[in-house]
Amino acid sequence: MLTISAQQEMALARLGEAEHRPLDYLKEKFSQGRIVISLNPKRPSTRITGIGEGLATKVNANIGTSGVRTDLSQEVKKLQAACDAGADTIMDLSTGGNLTAIRRHLLAECPIPFGTVPIYQVLVETINGQGSIKHMDPERLFDVIEEQAADGVDFMTLHCGVTRQVLEHLQKHQRVMGIVSRGGTFLAEWMLHNKQENPLYEQFDRLLKIAGKHKIVISLGDGLRPGALIDAGDQAQVAELEVLGELTKRSWEADVQVIVEGPGHVPLHQIQSSVQQQKAICHNAPFYVLGPLVTDIAPGYDHITSAIGGAVAGAAGADFLCYVTPSEHLGLPGVDEVRQGVTASRIAAHAADIAKGVPGAMDRDVAMSRARRSLNWDKQLELAIEPQRARTLLEKTHSNIQTCSMCGEFCVLKQEHSLAVCANR
Amino acid sequence: MLTISAQQEMALARLGEAEHRPLDYLKEKFSQGRIVISLNPKRPSTRITGIGEGLATKVNANIGTSGVRTDLSQEVKKLQAACDAGADTIMDLSTGGNLTAIRRHLLAECPIPFGTVPIYQVLVETINGQGSIKHMDPERLFDVIEEQAADGVDFMTLHCGVTRQVLEHLQKHQRVMGIVSRGGTFLAEWMLHNKQENPLYEQFDRLLKIAGKHKIVISLGDGLRPGALIDAGDQAQVAELEVLGELTKRSWEADVQVIVEGPGHVPLHQIQSSVQQQKAICHNAPFYVLGPLVTDIAPGYDHITSAIGGAVAGAAGADFLCYVTPSEHLGLPGVDEVRQGVTASRIAAHAADIAKGVPGAMDRDVAMSRARRSLNWDKQLELAIEPQRARTLLEKTHSNIQTCSMCGEFCVLKQEHSLAVCANR
Repeated sequence: MLTISAQQEMALARLGEAEHRPLDYLKEKFSQGRIVISLNPKRPSTRITGIGEGLATKVNANIGTSGVRTDLSQEVKKLQAACDAGADTIMDLSTGGNLTAIRRHLLAECPIPFGTVPIYQVLVETINGQGSIKHMDPERLFDVIEEQAADGVDFMTLHCGVTRQVLEHLQKHQRVMGIVSRGGTFLAEWMLHNKQENPLYEQFDRLLKIAGKHKIVISLGDGLRPGALIDAGDQAQVAELEVLGELTKRSWEADVQVIVEGPGHVPLHQIQSSVQQQKAICHNAPFYVLGPLVTDIAPGYDHITSAIGGAVAGAAGADFLCYVTPSEHLGLPGVDEVRQGVTASRIAAHAADIAKGVPGAMDRDVAMSRARRSLNWDKQLELAIEPQRARTLLEKTHSNIQTCSMCGEFCVLKQEHSLAVCANR
Repeated sequence: MLTISAQQEMALARLGEAEHRPLDYLKEKFSQGRIVISLNPKRPSTRITGIGEGLATKVNANIGTSGVRTDLSQEVKKLQAACDAGADTIMDLSTGGNLTAIRRHLLAECPIPFGTVPIYQVLVETINGQGSIKHMDPERLFDVIEEQAADGVDFMTLHCGVTRQVLEHLQKHQRVMGIVSRGGTFLAEWMLHNKQENPLYEQFDRLLKIAGKHKIVISLGDGLRPGALIDAGDQAQVAELEVLGELTKRSWEADVQVIVEGPGHVPLHQIQSSVQQQKAICHNAPFYVLGPLVTDIAPGYDHITSAIGGAVAGAAGADFLCYVTPSEHLGLPGVDEVRQGVTASRIAAHAADIAKGVPGAMDRDVAMSRARRSLNWDKQLELAIEPQRARTLLEKTHSNIQTCSMCGEFCVLKQEHSLAVCANR
C-alpha cells in the first residue's frame, strides 16, 4: 500500500474533477499502485495527469534529437505540436547535441509530465568519450538519473529487468530481430562484455531512494520487447516481465510509484492476452505500451498499425499508449509526423475508453452524432478531434454548407422520413 | 448447397493457387456459400477474386460522382489510384452526371470485380424527373438492376431487408442518427409514403432470376446500419439482419451467390460479438463490413477509426472490408483520400489475416523483419505496403543509407551483441 501525501491528495482531488471519479475511488487505486500521478516538486505547474485503472487512457509523445539531427528549435516545435494535438505526456529521447541543455530547455517549455530514458545520456557520453558502451561506469548512470530527477523530470524509463538470467533466454531461443530497445541493447552489451549484472537491477534499492527523494515515477522499461511480430511473446520477454513484477512490488514497498512498459510488435490476436498477462504478473500496475504494431509491413503508416494495436490494448486494460509516428522504422519524425502520431494514438485511446466504459467517454460521440443529425457543421468542427484537419477536408470539397459534396442533394439527413419518423433529435 | 459450374471450378483452381488453399477446400466452402467468386461473363478478363472463409480479407474502394462533383476523369483517376494501392474490388456509387455512361466507362477501365448500388440510379432519375422518391416506379428498379447486370457489373448492393416490419422497430425505438444508408433511406421513404412493402423484398425471387441469369453476386445491403456509436446494435438492425439471414438461404436455394453487409459505427468492445452474431444469423455467408468506425469524433481521420474497427472485425471473421477515406463525413474523397483509404484498409485486412491464421499471411512480415535486421533498405522498401510513401519519409530524413536518422550511430542493429549473440539472421 502506498501512502498518500497531502500534496498527492490535493492532486487526486483535482484529477477526480477532470475524470469524473470520486476522490475515494482515486485514493484507493492510488494506494494500491493502480493509478500514478506525477508531481515532481521542481515543476509545480505541470498539468495534473493520472494514469491507470478507471482513468481515461493517456498518450505519450516521444520527441528528441538524434546524432544526425540536433536542432533544438525543431524539438521545441515538436513539443508544441504534440501538446496542441493533445498529448498527455512528453518523453525526451534526445541522443544528439548537448543533452542536458536540450532537456532543461524542453522541460521549461513543457506544460505536461515529462519523461526521459537516462541511460541514453550515459551511452552517448560513454561512446563519444570512450568509443564503446563497454566502458560505461555504472556510477555515472546513477548520477545522471539523480541529475535528471533534480532537473524536474517526472518519470523515467529504467530497464531494470534486463538481468543476466533473462538474457540467457535470448541466447537459447534466438530471435529474428534480437533486442530492439536502445536501453536494453546497450545495457546487454555492457553486461555481456563485462560479465556483470545490470546495475539498475543490482542496485534497485539505490534507484528507489533517488525516485523517492525526487518524487519521480519509475517506468520499468521492457528492454526485451519484441521488434517483430515473429518474436512476440517469447520466453525472454516473459522472463523480463516476471522480474518487472517483482520490482513493482519492491517499488510499492518503498512508497515509489511505478508503471510497467510493454511491447512493441504483437499480432492482433495476441494483444488482449498479452495485456492481461502483463497486468496479472505486474499486480495491476499501470501498463504503458509502445504501439503495439499489428504488422511489420507498413513503414510510413506505423501510426495506423499502432492505432489498431493501441486501441485493442487499451480496451484490454492498457492505461498509457506511447504514440508511434509515420516515420517509425524510417527516420526521426518531423513536426507533422509528431502531430499525426499523437492524433492517431488519441483516436486509439478514445476508442479504448469507450470500450472500457470510462465515465463520460461517449458523451462527445453522442454530441457529434447530434451535430451531424442536424447538419450543424460548426458544431461538428468544434467537436472534431482535430478541427483544423476536418475543416481543411470540408472546405476542399464543400460547395454548399447545407449539403456536403459526398451526397449532394441526396443527403439522407435532408429526407423527410428521417426527420419525422426515425430519429430522435 | 450451391452447384459449381465448370467455369467456377476453373476460377476456384486459380484462386487456390493465389491463396495457398487446395481446390477441394475451396469447392466445399463455395458449395456451402461461405466463399463467393464474381464471374460476370460480360467481363471475362476480370481478376479472379474470392471472398469468404479461410481466404485473405479483401478490401473494397468506393468511387463515383455526386450531384455536385461530376467529373468522370477524376473518377477514372480514383479508380486507378485504388487499384494501384491494392484494392480488391471497386464500387461505383455515382449519383451525378450520366450514370450509365459513367458506369460503362469505369467498367471498361476496371481490372477487378466491380459493384454498384442500382437504387442510386433510380432515385437520381426519379428525383430529377419527378421531384421526389415517392414517385419511384418499382418496375424501373428491376429494369435498372438488369441493365447494370447486362453491362457486366459483378456484384450489387440490394437493400432487400428493409421491410415494413423492420421499419416498425425504428419507429418504436428512436435513434439519434435515424437511417444513414442512402439506399435504405430512400426505400424507407417510398415505403412509408406509399404504404407498400419493399419491392426488393416482395419480389426477391424476381431478383434471384436476374442474378442467376447474369451470374452476379448479391450483396445484401444493411439499410438500417447504425450511423452513430450510440445507435449500434439496436432492435431495428437485428431485425433486418434476421431478414437477411432468410434471404441468404433463399439465394442459395436458387444457386445465387450472396454476401451480407454490416455496419458502420460500432463501439470497439461490441465488434467481435457483432460479427459473430452476423455470421450465425446469416449462416456463415461472407460478411462485408463498412468500417466499422470505432468513434464518431474523428472526421478527417476516419480511415484510421475504420482501420481499427476493420482489423478487429476481420480478426473476428469479417471477410470483406469496405474502405473509409479521410473525407468521410466531410465530402466526396479526392484521389489522395482514395489512396489513403485503401492503404489503411489493407493494413487492417492484413492484421486481421495474421490473426485469422490465413496461410502465408505472416511471410511478408518475417521477410520485412529480416530486411530490417540486416539494414537492407532496398528490400524494406520493396516489401512495404506502399513503397513510395516509405521512400518519401526515408529520403526526407536520411543522411546515411547505413543508419537511419532515428538513432544515428546508436542504432541497435549495428551493435555487436545483437549480431553475435541474440539474433537469428
